[in-house]
This record gives sequence, C-alpha cells and structure tokens, in this order.
Amino acid sequence: MRKVNAAEAAELLKAQDSILILTHRNPDGDTLGSGFALLHGLLALGKTVRLQCEDEIHKKYNYMRPKTELPAFEPKYVVAVDIADEKLLGPTLFAEYSGEIDLCIDHHMSNTLYADALYLRECAATCELVYEVLCALGVEITKQMASCLYTGLSTDTGCFCYSNVTPETHEIAAQMLRCGADFDNINRIMFETKTWTYLKLEELVLNSLETYFDGRCALITITQKMFQQSGSNESECDGIASLPRKIEGVLVGVTLRERKDGSYKVSLRTYAPMDASYLCSKMGGGGHARAAGCDLEGKDLADGKQKLLEIIRTELEKI
Amino acid sequence: MRKVNAAEAAELLKAQDSILILTHRNPDGDTLGSGFALLHGLLALGKTVRLQCEDEIHKKYNYMRPKTELPAFEPKYVVAVDIADEKLLGPTLFAEYSGEIDLCIDHHMSNTLYADALYLRECAATCELVYEVLCALGVEITKQMASCLYTGLSTDTGCFCYSNVTPETHEIAAQMLRCGADFDNINRIMFETKTWTYLKLEELVLNSLETYFDGRCALITITQKMFQQSGSNESECDGIASLPRKIEGVLVGVTLRERKDGSYKVSLRTYAPMDASYLCSKMGGGGHARAAGCDLEGKDLADGKQKLLEIIRTELEKI
Repeated sequence: MRKVNAAEAAELLKAQDSILILTHRNPDGDTLGSGFALLHGLLALGKTVRLQCEDEIHKKYNYMRPKTELPAFEPKYVVAVDIADEKLLGPTLFAEYSGEIDLCIDHHMSNTLYADALYLRECAATCELVYEVLCALGVEITKQMASCLYTGLSTDTGCFCYSNVTPETHEIAAQMLRCGADFDNINRIMFETKTWTYLKLEELVLNSLETYFDGRCALITITQKMFQQSGSNESECDGIASLPRKIEGVLVGVTLRERKDGSYKVSLRTYAPMDASYLCSKMGGGGHARAAGCDLEGKDLADGKQKLLEIIRTELEKI
Repeated sequence: MRKVNAAEAAELLKAQDSILILTHRNPDGDTLGSGFALLHGLLALGKTVRLQCEDEIHKKYNYMRPKTELPAFEPKYVVAVDIADEKLLGPTLFAEYSGEIDLCIDHHMSNTLYADALYLRECAATCELVYEVLCALGVEITKQMASCLYTGLSTDTGCFCYSNVTPETHEIAAQMLRCGADFDNINRIMFETKTWTYLKLEELVLNSLETYFDGRCALITITQKMFQQSGSNESECDGIASLPRKIEGVLVGVTLRERKDGSYKVSLRTYAPMDASYLCSKMGGGGHARAAGCDLEGKDLADGKQKLLEIIRTELEKI
C-alpha cells in the first residue's frame, strides 16, 4: 500500500483502461456521487468504465446514471470509492475483489489500507477528493458530474449542517452550483421527500424511543417486524439514525437496527465532547467522531443493549 | 430615495455616529444576524451604536449580543436591516421612526423604498449584503460577527437547502467558517434540536395521517387532546404543517389544527401546479402560492373536511 495525492491518483487513472468502480453496500449519496462522478469523468476521457454495487441502487439516485447502458467488460483496474474496509463491499463483491483493489479514494480515517494505492484525506465527503482528482485529470465538470458531487457533499453533511463541514466543502459546493448542479431538486429528494412507508416506520420507531442518563442518551430500536408492519426497509433508514441525537439535551443518540439474521447493527451519533468513533471502537467498530457504527455484542438484545449503555455511561461520567 | 451600493453604504456609515440599527418584528436569524454583525462592526470602528427590535429577542440568539450593555443615546442616524416595509418594524418603532430611516440594507425585491438611501439586491440573505458593507468598511470580521452573518445565511436558506442559494452564498459561508463562525452549534440550535414533547406530538400526528385522490393529497389532524397527551403546544407546531407535503407524490398537504374553542384552522402546503392561495381563497382565506391558510367551515369536523376535500379534488382534476 502506498499513499498518493490527487495528482498521483489522476496519473494512475490516466494510465489505465477497463476500469471498474466499486461503491460500498447500502449505498449512500457520497459513495454513489463519488462513483458516478468519477465514472462520467473517465467516460469523458474515452475510458471503458463501469460501476458496481452489491445492493440495488435506489431509484432516487437515477439522475446520476449514464443515459445509455455501459457495455460489460473484464476489468483491468479496480477503484473503490468511500469504502473504509473491503468488508463494506458486501459479500459477493468482497469474494470477487478482496485483495484486488488497485486504487481507493476515501475520507474515513479508519480506512484499513487494503488498496494498492490510497488517496485518503479527512474531509466532509469523499466527493471532495473525487472533485480534486477530476480537476487533476483535466476533466471539465459537466452539469451531471456537478449534481453527483454536490449530492455527496450535501448528504454527508446533513445539507452543510454538521461539524464536519469545512470552508473547502462550501467552496466546492459553490463551484458545483456554478457548474449547474441541480441542487434544489437534489436536496428536495434527499431531505424533504418522505415515503408513506418511511413515515409509518418513523411512527413505530418514535414509539420505541428510550432515554438514559438524565436524557443525555436517547435510543431507538428498529426491528424487522417494524419493517414488515410499515412496508419500509433498510434502504429508507438513512435519515432515521440522526433522530435520537436531535432531541434537546441528547449527547449520544443510539439506533439499534435488527438485521434479517436477528443480529443488531449499532449506529451512534454524538455531540462533542462525546466521540462516536471511540465509543464504537470499544465494541469492535469505528467511524467518525460524530457518527460511527458497530455490531451489537452480547447473547441477546437486552444483554447487548446493557453492554453498550455501560460503555456510554462510563464516557458520559468523564465529562 | 436613492439606491446605493455596498461601498456607498459604507461611506454613509463612516461619516456618521450615534447610529441606531432597527430589525423587523418577530425577528429571525437574518434580521438579527444582519443587525448584530453591523453593530459589532461599527463598534469596532469606535462608533456609538445600538440595536432595537419591537419584540423580545429569543434567548437562542444570545450569542449575537455584545458582552456588555451598550449605553443609551439619542440616535442621529437610523439604519433598517432586512425590512421590506416600515410597517414590519412593529407599531411602536413604526410610530417613532416611520419616515426617519436614513439607510436600509435589504434583499426583498418587494422593498417599499421608504429609506433615504437603499442598498437592495436580490440574494439569499440580507447578511450577504451586510458582509459586503463590512468589507467595504475595512472591518476585520471577528468570530462573533462571523457567527451573526452565518446565522442569516443558514436560517434564510434552510441550511443551504432552498433554491435561493447561489454560489456567493456558499462562498461567504466558507469565509465565515474561516473567520471562526460557530456554525455547528448555530445549526444545532436553529435546525436540529427537537423537544421530547414535540417528538411525542409528531408520533400522535403521524397516526392521524390520511391520504386522498391517489396519494396526491395528504391530511393530518392536530387536536387539543394531542397537545394534552404530548405536553406540546401551538408554539411547537411551526414545522409540523410542512409534514404532509413531504410525502412522496403529494401535491397538496393539509394540516387541520383544532383551536381551544373547538374550531379548526386549515394550513395548506402545495407543490406546483397546485396553488395554495387559490384553494384557501375558496374558503375565505389566503396566503402564498405554496403556503396558505383559512378556517375550516361546516357544521362539524367531518363536514368541514368533506367541503375542503371537494375543493381540492376539483382543482386536482384540472391538472
């Protein structure tokens, strides 16, 4: 593994053809925005390129897709975008490409350094790094690329709301608006529009709300039964993990999400001085200071919840 | 009345002392951010200056205030910020300063041209214009001024979400972050925080959700009983009327809110081509194209709802 900068990443891409771009599973606006912006940029340079994701891509991201279907080909160069760990590719892509990633572009400092070349920098969204790479490639940013990149900036920052925003995030957003990004429609799709099934799920989830430690920790639980009752599913859960932290006085917001196999995924959202990444690392997970995740350990839900709450309590008592 | 630019507005201010800054009543983040940023800038230039507002300023804006109380004085120069019409000063300030405004800085194209000198430009927030004036005054933007200006940018754009955002809005936001604006706390105060009582009310209201006309109309009902059950009240309902329109496919979102006397207030939110103002005018109300209100007519809730839905159906059938 060697670390590269934007110019070096661009040189690597320039020298290659038949490029496969991989996004992480449960794809979000940043991994897809990064992947599709890079795809369009490489297409503009005349490269053969395609994008692959383990899971189905929600139709709300359709505006990122190329107008025509891209031909299949045997990839000679594999690029991972916004993927901190090869496991996040999902089982099928992991089985096929683990150990075979040539270049990774990522903003997670917890990156497991799995790629041959790595362009890693802490910033709000991987799309910021892809923007730099596209500039270094000399690609003219089209309206569609701008919409892809804007999507990553906007969705990874709660529309420029969170503490991970930097002056550069706003400056790149300004550039994307100049390049014609369809930002108000994108924000409407990503933040405003809710499905019936999502609203039904939100109602059930609000009913599960619990509070601990003088209201400084709030916890919601999303079960498979709730998915069945509401008609909703995993793909609609992106926003829901931010819900508990929104409550007045809450420093640690916890979302427990039941998987189909009955195990639980933990999503943590915190406010300073609570460090979500540190808390999750105690349970074998990781992420960012304000948003991180791990698996729920323990012999059952109650036991795992108790373990998790103990870890949170210990840290809350230090402040 | 003469129109001026940022440099001319700065020259006018430089030549004056004993300056009174006025904000509009029901003060929001943009009028207060503009007013306080200008106040701090003029203080830094050694001017005697104070700010006045007809209504009490919510404590969430306390970070904008000067650390020490400013002495009273007889104003020799009066500046209005973010005020489209003198009537928006509120009755007391209108009685005192109507016809006496020396300089107005505003971004509403509906401005009634009441001031002696007017710096008017269409942009997302008046804070963008105040930023230019402060630059023209040669004021160094402090952390506190940056927080004031950022607040206006953020609150008038739904945190950079709405279609009024321009590249310049993002560029000024980038500058404010560089100057130390406490943006994540500001956004948390302005957008993120929800009370327990509000969340409980939201859960009850979601349970009342009904859909009509192939999902193109969604209706929620807020009863006095729900206020009692949740511990919430009218003052927390601002955001809730926008909820039904957020649902995928909905063109007309209806909120029925029970008053203490048992009558119902109707709030309509629409997407084009449905005109909320026109629909409400059919029931003796009015407002804007996307947001309007009226009283629910009819002998009881069921009857009034039926009448309202008939009006909506007739208009939906035309598109």
